[in-house]
Amino acid sequence: MSKNYLNLVERFRKISNLEHASTFLSWDQQVMMPAGGNSARSEALAELAGIQHELLTSADMVNYFDNAATEQLEESKQVSLKEMKLKWQQAVCMPSDLVRAQSLATSKCQHEWQQQRSDNNWREFLPNLNEVVSLARQEACIRQEANSDAFKTPYDAMLDLYAAGDTSEFIGKVFSDLKEQLPELLQMVIDNQGTNSKVIHGPFDVDQQTALSKKLMEILGFNFSSGRLDVSAHPFSTGVKGDHRITTRYSQDEFAEAMLATAHETGHASYEAGLPAEWQGLPVGMARSMSVHESQSLLFEKQLFLAKPFVDFMSPKIQNFLPSTGTLSSQELWSYFTKVKPGFIRVEADEVSYPLHVILRHEIESKLINSEIEVVDIPDLWDQGMQDYLNIDTRGNFKDGCMQDIHWPAGAFGYFPSYTLGAFNAAQLFHSIRKEHPDWQARLEKGDVQFVLQWLEINIWSKGSLYTTEQLMTNATGERTNPEYFVEHIRSRYLKGEY
Amino acid sequence: MSKNYLNLVERFRKISNLEHASTFLSWDQQVMMPAGGNSARSEALAELAGIQHELLTSADMVNYFDNAATEQLEESKQVSLKEMKLKWQQAVCMPSDLVRAQSLATSKCQHEWQQQRSDNNWREFLPNLNEVVSLARQEACIRQEANSDAFKTPYDAMLDLYAAGDTSEFIGKVFSDLKEQLPELLQMVIDNQGTNSKVIHGPFDVDQQTALSKKLMEILGFNFSSGRLDVSAHPFSTGVKGDHRITTRYSQDEFAEAMLATAHETGHASYEAGLPAEWQGLPVGMARSMSVHESQSLLFEKQLFLAKPFVDFMSPKIQNFLPSTGTLSSQELWSYFTKVKPGFIRVEADEVSYPLHVILRHEIESKLINSEIEVVDIPDLWDQGMQDYLNIDTRGNFKDGCMQDIHWPAGAFGYFPSYTLGAFNAAQLFHSIRKEHPDWQARLEKGDVQFVLQWLEINIWSKGSLYTTEQLMTNATGERTNPEYFVEHIRSRYLKGEY
Repeated sequence: MSKNYLNLVERFRKISNLEHASTFLSWDQQVMMPAGGNSARSEALAELAGIQHELLTSADMVNYFDNAATEQLEESKQVSLKEMKLKWQQAVCMPSDLVRAQSLATSKCQHEWQQQRSDNNWREFLPNLNEVVSLARQEACIRQEANSDAFKTPYDAMLDLYAAGDTSEFIGKVFSDLKEQLPELLQMVIDNQGTNSKVIHGPFDVDQQTALSKKLMEILGFNFSSGRLDVSAHPFSTGVKGDHRITTRYSQDEFAEAMLATAHETGHASYEAGLPAEWQGLPVGMARSMSVHESQSLLFEKQLFLAKPFVDFMSPKIQNFLPSTGTLSSQELWSYFTKVKPGFIRVEADEVSYPLHVILRHEIESKLINSEIEVVDIPDLWDQGMQDYLNIDTRGNFKDGCMQDIHWPAGAFGYFPSYTLGAFNAAQLFHSIRKEHPDWQARLEKGDVQFVLQWLEINIWSKGSLYTTEQLMTNATGERTNPEYFVEHIRSRYLKGEY
Repeated sequence: MSKNYLNLVERFRKISNLEHASTFLSWDQQVMMPAGGNSARSEALAELAGIQHELLTSADMVNYFDNAATEQLEESKQVSLKEMKLKWQQAVCMPSDLVRAQSLATSKCQHEWQQQRSDNNWREFLPNLNEVVSLARQEACIRQEANSDAFKTPYDAMLDLYAAGDTSEFIGKVFSDLKEQLPELLQMVIDNQGTNSKVIHGPFDVDQQTALSKKLMEILGFNFSSGRLDVSAHPFSTGVKGDHRITTRYSQDEFAEAMLATAHETGHASYEAGLPAEWQGLPVGMARSMSVHESQSLLFEKQLFLAKPFVDFMSPKIQNFLPSTGTLSSQELWSYFTKVKPGFIRVEADEVSYPLHVILRHEIESKLINSEIEVVDIPDLWDQGMQDYLNIDTRGNFKDGCMQDIHWPAGAFGYFPSYTLGAFNAAQLFHSIRKEHPDWQARLEKGDVQFVLQWLEINIWSKGSLYTTEQLMTNATGERTNPEYFVEHIRSRYLKGEY
């Protein structure tokens, strides 16, 4: 008998159906909705969040969990139960009123941010973000208190929501090591790269770029009968099994950003599409953590798409869709895509300077959530950090400075470190794939990525949340997350010119 | 004190937030969703329908209604309470399992219908529709039983859901009168029209038609910061206050259908946009009935857009967007738009033959719901009816025959009569507007429709469901729905050539 376990399964599948609604209403809000719809939409999303929260935290759940613990369950169901309990514990400590207030505040802040960012309007963004931060601090304190053995600071509790399994201590140490060596490595790469890369001039037709992005997605195995590509202010990936939606954004001046974002989001979508169908709607069937999720997107974007042999394969296709690139050799296209040049925008950053963007955000958001600084202090800290790490002057430029990302307006404090943990994991996973497939360059030159997809499906995607991040990485590569693979990847590509 | 009334308001606003989710998930399903998303989407919609139903029919509602009846409420709140109670009574008689089964069955049937219709595949459509009809019969019997004084047959109870206030007896009599005189009137119109109208050849660029549709919407007062225009298999209008979404469909061969559908759906959206903001989320703040809703869409489409002076105004714009129409005079364009020619497709039908399409559907669906015929009998009855009423052979042509409409796959039996009641109301309302604004032709010639919008806003839109259909029509025009205005409109436009 596993009656209580089955009650839990039923409840989580019900919650998952409501999450389906929130998922696509949020997608619509960012991709389709006219401005006039925002107030009703925010109300509806808050209502759904509230109902999901009630379903997850209702009084009967305590009994289900207590009784399920005594039921005879096969091992995978025990893991499923453990993951359900974790989700429940993360929710049950949060008061409904706070959840609802956060949904309203982040809906409003995100929506108005779209216009405010394009207007460089920090002044009007400030009160909205203040409200989001104030609620996030409440959340962080509550989460820390609920598990004060594990979390030393409120921010640590937030970090755990995204990088589950990688402790704040581990992240702190790795980031601090990287901060020491990365600025020097970055300078070596810039010096090595020289100034001989060709400047590429637009305009590049947006319809043609869209067709090229779709072509790239097909090559990377994306199935358009189970997904869409659209445009949004900030590229993202969302959806459910069978309906994976990614977005990108196009500039007429250059085409690398849209293609890289497309490859990146296709990685996210492929992970979701490859999750185990039998566990659909249950926590154990979900992606392991954001640091694993970002490893998939970055593997697609940085390891796969930017590999010299893959660019060789893509180059005639790019020239076909964007005829004005016809004068460029494949090597010149590769130099264009892999150009290392510190800049303002995180999502446009090359992979060498990218971690410095993340480290800056990590430093600011950890202090912010731990109430060591206030929202009003962000711009000065941002300017100082960009100056110190990347030698860039961001003063007065909120739009391309501290207002550039959707994460803070969305209340996702603690998310940013996952990008760099993801970059470490991506380098480590691709290292294993290369070792297992010594003919990898020849395959990519022919546009064959099946061996990569299969390896990831077997080792990562199909595992859902059956293992911890540490177990998952160890099973797949022989050791837990190790930043050395990332540093070695940077040296190989940018100093030794190996791929 | 009005505590119980306020509890009801809160409950209905909560339900309205869930309805918001269903509304936009359904829009997405028809406009954006890839095929692979349908199974999860159907599950989610069924879950939402189930939760809405539970919230509306939970045990505490009986007490709220009983106690609210004794509270001191101002008159408008008494009407609001009455409308809430009606919605509750319509729901409380329906078992949750049936509601959920219907949501699943209609999602599946609608989704597969899109492909089946284009494949002319009646055979595979049949079992899906059988399931929908079987559940609709259960619904109809339950609804009839719940109010057996009012409803003589199960179908009468379904009719009341859409044409609230116009009894089945009234509709039966009016339709039977019309069926007597319309075929003869139709023949007179065809004879009068002669064969001198110009044949217009495509192809007409779809992007240009889209731009023209958007231009038309702007002229008709549509605000794109609170709405969208998209494409779907079957044009429709949906949304919430502040976010009104209409769809149309384009053919490269001709441009009248897309423009007429656009005008039609803009009428629906304008009604919704004009509903009273103070009653938002409550039944009393909703559109009165589908027969009033269709009166607004048909007023925009048939009375306004097809009026000769309005076509005069539009004609240079049409020629601007679709240059190949440049050789046509405004009179020739008007003849093109108002061409009366019996055809297969209801939504493409001219306004003279349109009621005959509706009468046929009404006859079939009433027998179907009353279990006098079976789904398998539909094609023969369809063929016979189309032969008798419109002299058209539909044998073997399911696609453009009995599979053409989304209503039956969606389980909306009893809806069709509202189109023709709407046409009556539209003619009657526009008659009053013309009487009040003797310079109406001069205004429309300048593209000024403000006087129409204002009149409708004051007399119809802002009233929500404060009055019955009969009261609403009487307040606005001096008498209840009277089909004579429609017949007179047909004579004036098509036999006397007045506008």
